[in-house]
Amino acid sequence: MSGLSHTDEHGRVKMVDVGAKSETARTAVAAGEIRMSRATLDAIRAGANEKGEVLATARIAGINAAKRTSELIPLCHNIPLSSVGVELELDDSLPGVRATSTASATARTGVEMEALVCVTVALLTIYDMTKAMGKEMVISDVRLLRKSGGKSGDWERAAD
Amino acid sequence: MSGLSHTDEHGRVKMVDVGAKSETARTAVAAGEIRMSRATLDAIRAGANEKGEVLATARIAGINAAKRTSELIPLCHNIPLSSVGVELELDDSLPGVRATSTASATARTGVEMEALVCVTVALLTIYDMTKAMGKEMVISDVRLLRKSGGKSGDWERAAD
Amino acid sequence: MSGLSHTDEHGRVKMVDVGAKSETARTAVAAGEIRMSRATLDAIRAGANEKGEVLATARIAGINAAKRTSELIPLCHNIPLSSVGVELELDDSLPGVRATSTASATARTGVEMEALVCVTVALLTIYDMTKAMGKEMVISDVRLLRKSGGKSGDWERAAD
Amino acid sequence: MSGLSHTDEHGRVKMVDVGAKSETARTAVAAGEIRMSRATLDAIRAGANEKGEVLATARIAGINAAKRTSELIPLCHNIPLSSVGVELELDDSLPGVRATSTASATARTGVEMEALVCVTVALLTIYDMTKAMGKEMVISDVRLLRKSGGKSGDWERAAD
Amino acid sequence: MSGLSHTDEHGRVKMVDVGAKSETARTAVAAGEIRMSRATLDAIRAGANEKGEVLATARIAGINAAKRTSELIPLCHNIPLSSVGVELELDDSLPGVRATSTASATARTGVEMEALVCVTVALLTIYDMTKAMGKEMVISDVRLLRKSGGKSGDWERAAD
Amino acid sequence: MSGLSHTDEHGRVKMVDVGAKSETARTAVAAGEIRMSRATLDAIRAGANEKGEVLATARIAGINAAKRTSELIPLCHNIPLSSVGVELELDDSLPGVRATSTASATARTGVEMEALVCVTVALLTIYDMTKAMGKEMVISDVRLLRKSGGKSGDWERAAD
Repeated sequence: MSGLSHTDEHGRVKMVDVGAKSETARTAVAAGEIRMSRATLDAIRAGANEKGEVLATARIAGINAAKRTSELIPLCHNIPLSSVGVELELDDSLPGVRATSTASATARTGVEMEALVCVTVALLTIYDMTKAMGKEMVISDVRLLRKSGGKSGDWERAAD
Repeated sequence: MSGLSHTDEHGRVKMVDVGAKSETARTAVAAGEIRMSRATLDAIRAGANEKGEVLATARIAGINAAKRTSELIPLCHNIPLSSVGVELELDDSLPGVRATSTASATARTGVEMEALVCVTVALLTIYDMTKAMGKEMVISDVRLLRKSGGKSGDWERAAD
Repeated sequence: MSGLSHTDEHGRVKMVDVGAKSETARTAVAAGEIRMSRATLDAIRAGANEKGEVLATARIAGINAAKRTSELIPLCHNIPLSSVGVELELDDSLPGVRATSTASATARTGVEMEALVCVTVALLTIYDMTKAMGKEMVISDVRLLRKSGGKSGDWERAAD
Repeated sequence: MSGLSHTDEHGRVKMVDVGAKSETARTAVAAGEIRMSRATLDAIRAGANEKGEVLATARIAGINAAKRTSELIPLCHNIPLSSVGVELELDDSLPGVRATSTASATARTGVEMEALVCVTVALLTIYDMTKAMGKEMVISDVRLLRKSGGKSGDWERAAD
Repeated sequence: MSGLSHTDEHGRVKMVDVGAKSETARTAVAAGEIRMSRATLDAIRAGANEKGEVLATARIAGINAAKRTSELIPLCHNIPLSSVGVELELDDSLPGVRATSTASATARTGVEMEALVCVTVALLTIYDMTKAMGKEMVISDVRLLRKSGGKSGDWERAAD
Repeated sequence: MSGLSHTDEHGRVKMVDVGAKSETARTAVAAGEIRMSRATLDAIRAGANEKGEVLATARIAGINAAKRTSELIPLCHNIPLSSVGVELELDDSLPGVRATSTASATARTGVEMEALVCVTVALLTIYDMTKAMGKEMVISDVRLLRKSGGKSGDWERAAD
């Protein structure tokens, strides 16, 4: 037994069969961050005071990508989401932007990949929209914070 | 002037017009990593010795996603890539997997987002395929290493 | 309170959470029209007498697009449709083509966007296939006619 | 001869072969409008004063859809756009929102469908985000304003 | 009555309305083969002994395509699959590769198109990855083997 | 050396780099067939006499899929096609339908996968639209007939 849920006893990829699971309410919360120069953060903030379209664009990109998670991650099931969104917080201490995404569905399998895809694409979109000011930005700490629902029960990341 | 290339003077999103640029050969190299428990890394390696389908699946997912970068990142141009791929290296010192993606095109704009999307989706796919063994995994240090081509010339990340 | 269902108290986009709603049978009917020169309408009709592929193509394009509504409209949920289709009626009084689309699903949220997308893309496809005969065509009166199902109950457009 | 460019002599659909055309700079401008109650327009404006995310979302949705025109309109060629965007103007005289989209590419065929798709999806997104305030909204006057480039030369809509 | 389920009494395409059907567990198994030169088969096998990425790539491509069946086949419903996969068997007697795909869902309509799309795209991917060794390859005998679930009951292909 | 163009010396998948190739006019012609009962063929023909929407739908599905070949076949490049279409011939001798697709592009790599995808999806669509009359249908002899353009020169299938 390999312990990997997506490969069979010969190591070949397979999609986990969720047909026998019952539909339950599932939620997942993921987070991540992008570090950048203070000047880039200030430029986002200056825009945010007026129109905020960098952050709006990142939020929408994250939502759109989360809905298409099963197209991006080969063995993910297509799960019609009840809700997905991403909060973006400008943080001078990084300096940069912290992203926290929450996804939920009534489904036979969990939505942690949807939350992780949402965070990641939102952060990549911030990178894209600010890269003219410097390419040193780094996306880090993309991780699951917690999940609930399903047979395996709730899970929460231990405090650092 | 905001310094952000994707917002106009009112902060509204816009796609940078690349029509006046000439087509040149462009290359971008991006990297990232996923840290995991040693047991998870060993499980990937054990599979790799036989069939390697976790890594193969991650490579293909990264390639597929890179080709669809303009669908994921709202203001990216659709660039027909000449080539894209991702190398995955099992690294006991993390422990985890290091990913390095190279994308190239003959195009009017650069391909750094394609390389970053490739790395990110490959790492998310590794997460998805191994998450049954533990959800503590963290994706970090997703960054551009270097790019070449185009009017702005070559760029290389400074050594840490 | 803004009255807008897709923005939070800070005006930020969010997806309405439909997780607490129950699945009910939903139907929506939308309509629209494209006005064109009489010569273009006659060309469609002449084709229609033989093979009708302009109208067939428009019907299929509308159906295909409706199934992908959640990819086009950022805050739409992915709703597996029970049925969707579009009727196209050649109308000498416009002159042009009238489109009426009906979408249905057993879902937690309504399908009016699916019906509207179906109508719109069918009409755009007619434009595309006949634009060689004249670019004066105008798409108008794209609107919801009625919807049923869901907690908010039935709705029907008032007579003009 | 049918006059329809996308059907052959038997009325069967075909894609126009653009292989013999040379690549030239192409631009197309399209427009359209959505009429709504004054209360709905005021709600958008109130949001716009603070964050403007209804309009930002509509702009991004239009851009995203324009890049995927060839997936929506069956006989459209896949054209890598140099630029596409949409301006949204709140207009009390409608009351409602006027949309004007400009698309450009260096290509073997024109980009008018891309501009029309951009306008239409931006307007449908406004509908989606405000429909909780009333479903009477109507999308109208979706039309090409002008195009340039290509063998057939420039075209501009005659004044009404 | 035409006997065709996807055209109305006038021959116009329509999507079968499945709203009145109840959700039941559905399974479909499809198969197909690709014949090739013995040298090409040997090259795949040589790769398979080490890394097997031709077969892994084909498996993933089939799975990915199956999840998007409703985007490819115009009148297919979007069905969230519980599971889909494809077995690939190297067969010296062809010489070539035999593919067998199984798809399952709890749905209002069957999943035979998903199984057929999975088989077909897996075989096309093998073609793509080996075509440098010879273009004489032929894909044949793509067919449904059996299906279960739904009102029409089980079906199994008669022995040849 | 493996002889496989899409795997490196370690058997790992890679995308062939076409950046150094020059753009030339490329054409590929592929064919295939679907065999069915005479009753099913007669039903298609009866429809075809009136509206022909089974065949129109199959043609459009094939064209749409061909444009998205790079999304389906993992290592295919995204090639903006100059033209693609599929001819469908009802053949009593099968009985069934013969499909022949032609794709062309000015590109750095060939378009044989696009032609093969077009044929295959057109045939699968015919299957889908007629499967209510019998599931015994078989898709066979999907193959490349000829290709031209590119450094490797022209190729034509030898007569049987």
